[in-house]
Amino acid sequence: MRWSIINLDKFFKPESVAIIGVSSNEHKLGHVIFRNLMNNYKAKIYPINPNEGRIVGYKCYPSVLAVEDPIELAIIAIPSEAVIPAVNECVKKKIPNLIIISSGFSEIGNKKREEELRKIVEKNNINLVGVNCLGNYDAHTRFDSMFIPTTRLKRPRPGYISFISQSGALGAAVLDLLASKNYGLSKFISYGNATSLDESDYLDYLITDNNTKVICLYIEGVRDGKKFMQVAKKASLKKPVIILKGGVTEKGAQAALSHTGAMAGSSQVYSAVFKQCGLIEVSSLEEMFNIARILENVVKPKGNRIQIITNGGGYGILGTDSISKNNLRFAEMYPRTKNELAKKFPPLVSISNPIDLIGDADDERFRLAIEKCLNDPNIDIILTLLLPQTPLITENIVGTITKLNDMKKKPIIVVCTGGLFAQKIRSELDSKGVVCFDFITDAVSSIKRMCEYYKLG
Amino acid sequence: MRWSIINLDKFFKPESVAIIGVSSNEHKLGHVIFRNLMNNYKAKIYPINPNEGRIVGYKCYPSVLAVEDPIELAIIAIPSEAVIPAVNECVKKKIPNLIIISSGFSEIGNKKREEELRKIVEKNNINLVGVNCLGNYDAHTRFDSMFIPTTRLKRPRPGYISFISQSGALGAAVLDLLASKNYGLSKFISYGNATSLDESDYLDYLITDNNTKVICLYIEGVRDGKKFMQVAKKASLKKPVIILKGGVTEKGAQAALSHTGAMAGSSQVYSAVFKQCGLIEVSSLEEMFNIARILENVVKPKGNRIQIITNGGGYGILGTDSISKNNLRFAEMYPRTKNELAKKFPPLVSISNPIDLIGDADDERFRLAIEKCLNDPNIDIILTLLLPQTPLITENIVGTITKLNDMKKKPIIVVCTGGLFAQKIRSELDSKGVVCFDFITDAVSSIKRMCEYYKLG
Repeated sequence: MRWSIINLDKFFKPESVAIIGVSSNEHKLGHVIFRNLMNNYKAKIYPINPNEGRIVGYKCYPSVLAVEDPIELAIIAIPSEAVIPAVNECVKKKIPNLIIISSGFSEIGNKKREEELRKIVEKNNINLVGVNCLGNYDAHTRFDSMFIPTTRLKRPRPGYISFISQSGALGAAVLDLLASKNYGLSKFISYGNATSLDESDYLDYLITDNNTKVICLYIEGVRDGKKFMQVAKKASLKKPVIILKGGVTEKGAQAALSHTGAMAGSSQVYSAVFKQCGLIEVSSLEEMFNIARILENVVKPKGNRIQIITNGGGYGILGTDSISKNNLRFAEMYPRTKNELAKKFPPLVSISNPIDLIGDADDERFRLAIEKCLNDPNIDIILTLLLPQTPLITENIVGTITKLNDMKKKPIIVVCTGGLFAQKIRSELDSKGVVCFDFITDAVSSIKRMCEYYKLG
Repeated sequence: MRWSIINLDKFFKPESVAIIGVSSNEHKLGHVIFRNLMNNYKAKIYPINPNEGRIVGYKCYPSVLAVEDPIELAIIAIPSEAVIPAVNECVKKKIPNLIIISSGFSEIGNKKREEELRKIVEKNNINLVGVNCLGNYDAHTRFDSMFIPTTRLKRPRPGYISFISQSGALGAAVLDLLASKNYGLSKFISYGNATSLDESDYLDYLITDNNTKVICLYIEGVRDGKKFMQVAKKASLKKPVIILKGGVTEKGAQAALSHTGAMAGSSQVYSAVFKQCGLIEVSSLEEMFNIARILENVVKPKGNRIQIITNGGGYGILGTDSISKNNLRFAEMYPRTKNELAKKFPPLVSISNPIDLIGDADDERFRLAIEKCLNDPNIDIILTLLLPQTPLITENIVGTITKLNDMKKKPIIVVCTGGLFAQKIRSELDSKGVVCFDFITDAVSSIKRMCEYYKLG
């Protein structure tokens, strides 16, 4: 069995791409992929279909062999029985990288066909993503092999979290969600049946990828445990790796078996292995991306002493309860900080932990409080609970907090609860690298996981 | 100490309202309240201000005593030092119901002034909501005494959940959130310092309110423990009462003391009391409204055997894990149901638990699966995990699921994850009484709480 770090760059920034199976029917997968690529990605793109002359104005080739120039990557989206002949043509054309979207292999019991395919690509040293996958996406280069139109699956903005997902539909839902929330993404890989390349290869590749600060991984099973452990250990020494294992319960494992044919194995064994490898295990997708966003964006804090700043007394109390329940520590401001704030604030403002800026707080009151807390060495993390319904909070709060966050002195985590105006503030803050949450409980439990990761006890 | 059920109808559908302290400055609280009422509520409305002749075209009265007709309710939004003289005028005018928005009483140490006020209203048999509160709101009548403009705090649509909140800012954030999610609300009461009427009075009133199916309660402290327990026991026999206690930890209790002056007390004592009274205790606002929505909308299930229906294999696995972790039960379809579905579905569809309708599922495939599960006596609850990114799902899925849900045979709970299209589906389903969640974990833990409430083990 081969195992060396495989350079997957050409899956994210190929200079020439063939799409095998581009129909003129705009609802067909190949057509959607072709359209997405044509609209958003700059490269030589060759649609392949023996039955079409032109596709939306572009020359269509009967086979990759009819293309004169070299091709770096082929995307195959044709019925499974036609895949192997097409791959044989790719071999002849010396195309080194393949993405096979097509399903109809081992996941429906067609193990022979998949095994034959594996042998062909490995013998010819071809890198294969798939089969039975959604495709992949790079938010920086905008390379996109996903067969879902952008009207249905909005693509996220560029960021530094990469996501490897065994499941395609789940990956699609997550990407769509990230885009709507304005969270950033670097690379997305859906790998389906892992016919040749598997989760360990993708993980290994991302270790040295400069656009990846945090790696997220959804798996249902691991193909080669020893290889995975070695790669995972190496990876987690370089960057945070967050893992969600589908099928951690007995019933869930049964469901996984009929999904991607993965042997889910015992959850306790997996959890122990993940821990030993330094991976951050989570139990839901929301938890995964909450922690990922924090690790992507905030500076490492010096300790775990949290100061709450809020304009809602009740929210301050719930935040305090949440910090206590998570066994995190409360900051105790220097008396000098208290005195400085007391000079600037009206007497009703409560300068303690929480700092309660009360209902008539304006943006400037938040600015002052955060600034003074950034300068207080007794405070490690600033948790800002912002209720934007009160009348004196304006849109300028986004610029105010962003400027303070850009100083990169301490983590500033924001919770902003509410409707449209709150959503707008969250979305703008997130797009500017200020990590923002809808709810207190998610923010505090994510801060806890960050502190665990950095071993701040 | 008086204690009888107090009729608070006039706080939600008064026929005549005076607003004491309406300035011509549109940013002032009194003006905002006046505008909201004028725009949305049909009644005789009298703005009161000795210094203004007309307010946005309406005659302004120097005092309630200058109004000839009787007044059922007065809303007072003036500086605290002017409150008692104004209340004395209300006494003279025989106004039986008061909402005092003004702050500046016991919460800043001004206990004498608040005690004097309490004596005046109780001596004259006046019902008082407040002081130091946000106001109240009825989504059915559209009566609205909240001082936040609708541009900042959208009002929720009519529904059957009522929310009593000690904290105003927290209440505002929750209402704004409910509105943006298209969740329904019945009555909202923010009661601040509880100068005269307290949490028990409001709870007592809602027991017999026909527009209230579920009662939600955010409290920081209980003023009269014995009274509260009696009312809570009575209430929970009639309808579900969900309670969130701020200040359940030692640090949180300290924060509560400086917020509303409430003695938060020991959390263990509170939890034990809540349980004894049949209340559903939650630890966050999101949890509160997730459970409330379920209890508001779904029919009581016969048992706790859950069937998953999904179009995403990975999502089916995570759903299965979540059910297992929450110690809920899996339904096992009758063989007849399986056979009927097998006849209608393509062979790749997995007819088990989960039912995996796979990536090319259309609305009709969902309809058929849900319909057959509704008719299978081995299934109690249907958990539909819908990933709307796959191309054959259309907006018609909303009508399809609503129609099945309207039969009120079994609870149908939907999870729909993603961006704009998913949000649209969720919002429309929720507005039609189909309970819909963003994430699996929230849905399953809420189902668990419902099963506990109905004692389905």
